[in-house]
Amino acid sequence: MQSEGLRGLLIERETDSPVARVVRALSGHGAVSTAQIARTTGLARSTVSTILTDLRRSSLVIEVEARSLGIGRPALAHSLNPEAGTCAGILLGLGEIRIILADVAHNVISDVSIPVERDYAPERATRVIKHTLGSLYREHSLPLAGLLGVGLAVSGPLAPDGRIMRASMLPTWGGVDLKSTFQPLLEKPIFADNESNCAALAEMMWGAAVGSDDFVLFKLDLGVGGAIVANGRVLTGAAGSAGEFGHMTLDPHGELCRCGNRGCLELSVSAAAVLGLAERRLGRATTLPEVIRGAQTGDVGFRRLLQDAGEAAGRGLGIIGTIVNPGLFVISGGLAAAGEILLEPLRASYEKHTLVKRDDLDEAQAPRFTVGRFLDNDSCMGAVGLVLRHHGRLV
Amino acid sequence: MQSEGLRGLLIERETDSPVARVVRALSGHGAVSTAQIARTTGLARSTVSTILTDLRRSSLVIEVEARSLGIGRPALAHSLNPEAGTCAGILLGLGEIRIILADVAHNVISDVSIPVERDYAPERATRVIKHTLGSLYREHSLPLAGLLGVGLAVSGPLAPDGRIMRASMLPTWGGVDLKSTFQPLLEKPIFADNESNCAALAEMMWGAAVGSDDFVLFKLDLGVGGAIVANGRVLTGAAGSAGEFGHMTLDPHGELCRCGNRGCLELSVSAAAVLGLAERRLGRATTLPEVIRGAQTGDVGFRRLLQDAGEAAGRGLGIIGTIVNPGLFVISGGLAAAGEILLEPLRASYEKHTLVKRDDLDEAQAPRFTVGRFLDNDSCMGAVGLVLRHHGRLV
Repeated sequence: MQSEGLRGLLIERETDSPVARVVRALSGHGAVSTAQIARTTGLARSTVSTILTDLRRSSLVIEVEARSLGIGRPALAHSLNPEAGTCAGILLGLGEIRIILADVAHNVISDVSIPVERDYAPERATRVIKHTLGSLYREHSLPLAGLLGVGLAVSGPLAPDGRIMRASMLPTWGGVDLKSTFQPLLEKPIFADNESNCAALAEMMWGAAVGSDDFVLFKLDLGVGGAIVANGRVLTGAAGSAGEFGHMTLDPHGELCRCGNRGCLELSVSAAAVLGLAERRLGRATTLPEVIRGAQTGDVGFRRLLQDAGEAAGRGLGIIGTIVNPGLFVISGGLAAAGEILLEPLRASYEKHTLVKRDDLDEAQAPRFTVGRFLDNDSCMGAVGLVLRHHGRLV
Repeated sequence: MQSEGLRGLLIERETDSPVARVVRALSGHGAVSTAQIARTTGLARSTVSTILTDLRRSSLVIEVEARSLGIGRPALAHSLNPEAGTCAGILLGLGEIRIILADVAHNVISDVSIPVERDYAPERATRVIKHTLGSLYREHSLPLAGLLGVGLAVSGPLAPDGRIMRASMLPTWGGVDLKSTFQPLLEKPIFADNESNCAALAEMMWGAAVGSDDFVLFKLDLGVGGAIVANGRVLTGAAGSAGEFGHMTLDPHGELCRCGNRGCLELSVSAAAVLGLAERRLGRATTLPEVIRGAQTGDVGFRRLLQDAGEAAGRGLGIIGTIVNPGLFVISGGLAAAGEILLEPLRASYEKHTLVKRDDLDEAQAPRFTVGRFLDNDSCMGAVGLVLRHHGRLV
């Protein structure tokens, strides 16, 4: 019954009643105060209070202690009842399918990774997901009827109609229509966005960008991607390909990139590029953690590789700063684990190449650079966020 | 009395009542139907109808004929009463101060340009503006009390607190605080943004981008600038410098730019760059219209200059497309008057350098390129729009 009520208020598109707006604010923000809900929804505080009383009576909402600043008694906040519904975030990854189950009060229930062959087909993915979801719900004694929606994080640009585009990291998924692939089997509302946009959502909801409505996520993984968040919304772009920072043309006569253009930023800054050079230096296969550990313990060659990647990334970020001028850059992905070895040359190079210099700015306007909170599972956490924030609805 | 009522509803910050939301929708959009107002404000149609009836009774709103598609009788629309208030858009230009007066029903009352010396000081500008506004209001027999607000379009980035930043085209204005400069003399609410953001607002409200909530304005004038519009809002950036497309670093070892960086896009595509080369070819001073006319009537040298500018611009636009992925590019500024001579190589170069190619896209997702409507007065019209749309409020 509860999840039925919540489904209507949270998931159905047409509902824009005051009570639905309150429920969506709770879903999107976790535990929040009456005043915060009033601000987010634009409703009067008294209206919000009345609605919250009704929602508590029907057990859709509970009272919780808000995180306080440590002075005085903790403030009261409201949250959706964790028993009122669940959602699943799914990453269609390279060689793995990862599934995070969470409740509507923003608690993670389980986090599993299922290894799959590298060129797995969409049909295989749907079967694995349906089977795993069934097992997880049984294992945690949860009703599958309480699953309010499934969020999908996909690698590569996603058209607004749910079609994965050519530039995907998973060649077997180019051209796949997520709607017709997943809806018949899952029979649940489906939300989707590309993995970098999902990562930005995770950092905005729970990570390094909490409280920031305008920031850029810059993700240095095997590929290089990212997302632009403006006015609290992830910018998807007309064809769903906004934030593809790795494919900025820096040198039109440069090396050919996997995307078909020349001289893309990704060619000099991705983890794949760094690993390729590290393996040439070692004469054997290696991993990113080994390279980063080596640099941190004094290997000057590995250190130089990471510094050069930071410098090249800073040039790309300088262009992003000149065009978008965000107040915060969240540096994410496997390479970001290198910390200051990467960030120091990155910031210096940004300052050199961007239009507005630190000297031109008040402290409050100067861009901040920070490492993301979810270097390992940002995209999958963000896929959970798709459902909670009602972003990227397909069916 | 009318303008007093309108000032409260339109200009005062705190008001977020349903009636204020309806008035702002009318102010921002001109003549609109009840259904459109309901969509824009999120209010129920019946609520909107009741509010409109009240506003008509107090003469703040009138009924007008909406532009129809030519079939059947014209639909009814609502507009603010043109007699209910006026606003002024002011361009602080290079060697001129331009002032456009308009009423709240979006009718232009007058459009004047006052020549000033190139290095005019802010104090001179305030005196000229106060004097000219007084004359214009007397000339048109309008009450100065009906002036609801003044919009200022400034060249160069503007910090959120109203301070003009270093990168301004007008060196005498770098560091000037618009609030303390203009408010004491004008004693009216003041709105401000940089000229490219104003231009984007004008194209969105009345020009080439009507109906488009996500587009990029790319302005090829003496300098090169632009604006990003996402979800119907002009992106200003944390320090007010978003959209500075002319200063993307394309070649970090290139020529030194006036901004202090090297190899900026502006160095190869601005009207100043084109004019410099044209004058070398002619051995004498020339103008942009002469160069464009020459190219259109068969001068292969001038034609090549414009084509090369288009090709270089397309490379910069390709990066913007990869990062922002807008559905529409509005090409604006003096060079845009060259039309297809510029646009053809620009589109080809964009297609070559951007990530997502035309073949990857449905017709509806492919970016469109169009010349702006207001090549001559977009920034000043946009300054009027600042007041009507309540964008960039300083005091």
